Amino acid sequence: MLWRFEKSPCLSRNLQCLQRHGLGAKTVKRSFHHTRPVRTPTNEATSSPLQAVRHATLVDKSKLYEAGSDNAIVKVVGLVRSVRKQKNVAFARVADGSTLGSVQAVFPHPNIAKDITNGAYVSLIGKWVASQGAGQSHELLVHEIETIGESNPLENPIQKQSMTAEFLRTVPHLRMRTAFQSLLVRVRSQLTAAVSSHFNNRSEPVYQVHPPLITSSDCEGAGEVFTITPRSKEIPRYIPPNTSREQEKLYFREPKYLTVSSQLHLEAYSAQLGDVFALSPTFRAEESDTPRHLAEFYMLEAEHRGITFDDLLRCVRSLVVDLTESLQSHQTGKELLQYYEDHKHRPDEVDFIDLEERWSRLTGPWHTVTYTAAIQALKDAHEASGRTLFVNRPHWDWGLQLEHERWIVENVAKGKPVFVTHYPRAIKPFYMLPSAITPTSEQHWVPADNNTDPEETVACFDLLLPYGYCEVVGGSLREHRLEDLIRNMRSKGLLKSVDATNGTEYPFLDPGESLGTLRWYADLRRFGSNPHGGYGLGFDRLLAYLTGVANVRDVVGFPRTWGRADC
Amino acid sequence: MLWRFEKSPCLSRNLQCLQRHGLGAKTVKRSFHHTRPVRTPTNEATSSPLQAVRHATLVDKSKLYEAGSDNAIVKVVGLVRSVRKQKNVAFARVADGSTLGSVQAVFPHPNIAKDITNGAYVSLIGKWVASQGAGQSHELLVHEIETIGESNPLENPIQKQSMTAEFLRTVPHLRMRTAFQSLLVRVRSQLTAAVSSHFNNRSEPVYQVHPPLITSSDCEGAGEVFTITPRSKEIPRYIPPNTSREQEKLYFREPKYLTVSSQLHLEAYSAQLGDVFALSPTFRAEESDTPRHLAEFYMLEAEHRGITFDDLLRCVRSLVVDLTESLQSHQTGKELLQYYEDHKHRPDEVDFIDLEERWSRLTGPWHTVTYTAAIQALKDAHEASGRTLFVNRPHWDWGLQLEHERWIVENVAKGKPVFVTHYPRAIKPFYMLPSAITPTSEQHWVPADNNTDPEETVACFDLLLPYGYCEVVGGSLREHRLEDLIRNMRSKGLLKSVDATNGTEYPFLDPGESLGTLRWYADLRRFGSNPHGGYGLGFDRLLAYLTGVANVRDVVGFPRTWGRADC
Repeated sequence: MLWRFEKSPCLSRNLQCLQRHGLGAKTVKRSFHHTRPVRTPTNEATSSPLQAVRHATLVDKSKLYEAGSDNAIVKVVGLVRSVRKQKNVAFARVADGSTLGSVQAVFPHPNIAKDITNGAYVSLIGKWVASQGAGQSHELLVHEIETIGESNPLENPIQKQSMTAEFLRTVPHLRMRTAFQSLLVRVRSQLTAAVSSHFNNRSEPVYQVHPPLITSSDCEGAGEVFTITPRSKEIPRYIPPNTSREQEKLYFREPKYLTVSSQLHLEAYSAQLGDVFALSPTFRAEESDTPRHLAEFYMLEAEHRGITFDDLLRCVRSLVVDLTESLQSHQTGKELLQYYEDHKHRPDEVDFIDLEERWSRLTGPWHTVTYTAAIQALKDAHEASGRTLFVNRPHWDWGLQLEHERWIVENVAKGKPVFVTHYPRAIKPFYMLPSAITPTSEQHWVPADNNTDPEETVACFDLLLPYGYCEVVGGSLREHRLEDLIRNMRSKGLLKSVDATNGTEYPFLDPGESLGTLRWYADLRRFGSNPHGGYGLGFDRLLAYLTGVANVRDVVGFPRTWGRADC
Repeated sequence: MLWRFEKSPCLSRNLQCLQRHGLGAKTVKRSFHHTRPVRTPTNEATSSPLQAVRHATLVDKSKLYEAGSDNAIVKVVGLVRSVRKQKNVAFARVADGSTLGSVQAVFPHPNIAKDITNGAYVSLIGKWVASQGAGQSHELLVHEIETIGESNPLENPIQKQSMTAEFLRTVPHLRMRTAFQSLLVRVRSQLTAAVSSHFNNRSEPVYQVHPPLITSSDCEGAGEVFTITPRSKEIPRYIPPNTSREQEKLYFREPKYLTVSSQLHLEAYSAQLGDVFALSPTFRAEESDTPRHLAEFYMLEAEHRGITFDDLLRCVRSLVVDLTESLQSHQTGKELLQYYEDHKHRPDEVDFIDLEERWSRLTGPWHTVTYTAAIQALKDAHEASGRTLFVNRPHWDWGLQLEHERWIVENVAKGKPVFVTHYPRAIKPFYMLPSAITPTSEQHWVPADNNTDPEETVACFDLLLPYGYCEVVGGSLREHRLEDLIRNMRSKGLLKSVDATNGTEYPFLDPGESLGTLRWYADLRRFGSNPHGGYGLGFDRLLAYLTGVANVRDVVGFPRTWGRADC
């Protein structure tokens, strides 16, 4: 693997080196089979300095040219997807994870392929020649099998025939060996790099920060949290609450949780740095078993100093369009299209999904509607249906259920991505800024409905996507005024009670009130506060939308959900 | 902030727009001070669409030219680092987090600056003119104060005079408002982007993956782990152990921990994808209170299929050199040098640190020594000193203590970074490959000492850095043979006992043995195993080395350590 890490191209040197070798079929082989003794390595096994060439490089004509073009001697390593043995020749398809497809390996002497089975790992050396068969332009004419990591096809959970997504979720450590799951890992990698490019390749950068995952607060009451304790203290035992002994036993002196959002910490960074983002794991301990929820997931969160509400929405659109376009123009995007095209006429296996249509909805025009207007449309439709349209009656005070969100996307936005803005402050977290504080030039965001007091809605939005994905981004301007923030906390019951004679003095707190674990967050307003806003994007949900995957469990390597954290 | 997100340069439009405005000194101001009523916004407050320009852009001459060059009307926002008021003029230094320095704001009418204090946030509009004073080439001649987020300098923990690192750690949410801490956040951002570039900008990419943080095993016995439980079940109560009722109460049905390393999961990815990396949070619940340990930290881990031991070391060196060079050539690197240069003659505040010397040690030649040879050198030196040199007597069976590592760097490697290789297998995790399996061409790695059985050492390394940082990277080739892996697990007590009649059949297990939560990891060898290796780099430690920071708590925004997780 040396050549990959040096600046000079070492591949051609390797090729020259190998071309000096004899090319007769060999089985200079180290086997990792578990039913036979492992041979100690011999000189011959390591005499070749040839480095493996990835399938993606071999099929990329521009790179192939560098690699010495047709008839080059190359080494290919990977897992066997299928084997076909005939009397005078054997074939295997070998996938090395760099493409959706696989290398066709041809064994002119079928006996040397006798140990090769589906699921085995092989390291093959041979000549890269124009293929005589259909289905590939080139194939590997194998001269030498360097190593085999054998696999009993009767025991290997990964079978040649298609397997259900439900089954594959039970073997996450092996399912990435299938063509589509392997592609999803590469798409995730590509989009992660695209996030970095989006925020770094601009005249004024947005800084990437690493907010803590161990936190003191549950941020926004956004969900049930996980508590953490050192393992040695996990044994359940009865100790009266509020004892100092118990507190002494806590690793951090007070209870700590896994973060449900990095927003509050991002605000601390943003106050000085201006524009920051984090792509960071986030946790929810909710007992929800749906295709849209994970207990551990990646959130892409950004916070911008001095941003207006309009510009916040523009940021989100710019990000989503950028990520979509990066996928469209990348090899992984083309492979996704290829995958669904290949399965178009096999309706028993995979529903055909028109990814180009999906992507074009993200890059095309979007819709915007206020929450108040959306509720009115929901109510009207519900009434018109004789109150049978929805299970949950739409009501301004109650927020949106998934069925409502889906209806809004389909009927209000006509299938376009839609920003629903200005929700009631009563159903939103304490840190959101009232719509009334939105700059005057943006008053078109404030509901036209005269019955809605702009003090009673907040400058927030949810971005809903079509095809049932619904909420993928949520964001808001933040309450930057200390007095108003504390008033919100009081009205939402977030202030703690302390002995009135024992309380610390803090502006706008009444005697006996304490900010508890949110004091540091209030400090951001107490000292040099500034207007700001931000958002959080569910990275897994966006990835699921972009790849046509219905269940977010299939776009993460090792999904953690209620009752399930295999491997 | 619109102009930052559109492709056409909107800044000049903003400037033209403002230049139509009158330029008399104004205090069109919204204040967020907590001791006065907040005014509702007025039309005048939002009539200007001018977007803030970052200080880094203003001082970058190439960008300044785009911004309309000298005498442009610009908006600058940031936190006030200092204020100086005279009879006819007032000055403030405003830092917006984009540079180590700050903008000098000049108020020709000092009365309009009366509310500006140290620590306040200000949004200022004015003319960017050549400075008449020393210390900056340009300054902002303020015409208008748009907003002030006031700050009582008597209450603000961040003071103008220098503060100790110990004190600043008690206010992590505010310490990033100091010049150096703010710079450290940007260096971290830059190096994070450099990691992405290092792995993506090569002919054959290394894929970035997101391994899970919630795991079933403690990986390698590397440290004490954190257990996680949903908060609603956190109330201590007595339940007899091993009851099914208790198990029912577990969110994931079985105990789960926060990961101490993503290596095992990376191996699953690598088996199919080939070369993968993750920059991911990692947790240790050890009760160690040192400048080198955090309870939550970032590890950069990579796994490579089919790699040799030599190439693994080359990968690590290539990564470290790349990151160092990216910092050297980046603006943040220059600012780090500037910072230490500025403090060179103030020995009471900051020890002068020769960062260029530090960096050149990373980019210059490195040293390599086997563990066995290092132990011999330690023993010889200890004996020669009359057994007074070390607190802990060096012994082949006992591993290296920090004092030993420091001595090796200083004396064996003469201050160079040093790979210590081939540790005893008895003191290393179960998954490491014996040195004897290292390919023959690399036998120079095997200790020359004939008394050392190469079956008794493993193909592993630690990278130790000078200046007391010591271990920053550790890695190894992995045991890819199922039978040997299980034998290692047995000898290290990692196999679980089960009812012999109830056990699942698995190759090489005796009746009554179970692989427990590591069965999936063994599966990676059972089905299509391949030789591979990888490493983990302590991102925070490397960052501390590169920035001259002695304590890793100062290179993370919100450090979590034993007994301490503020904010």
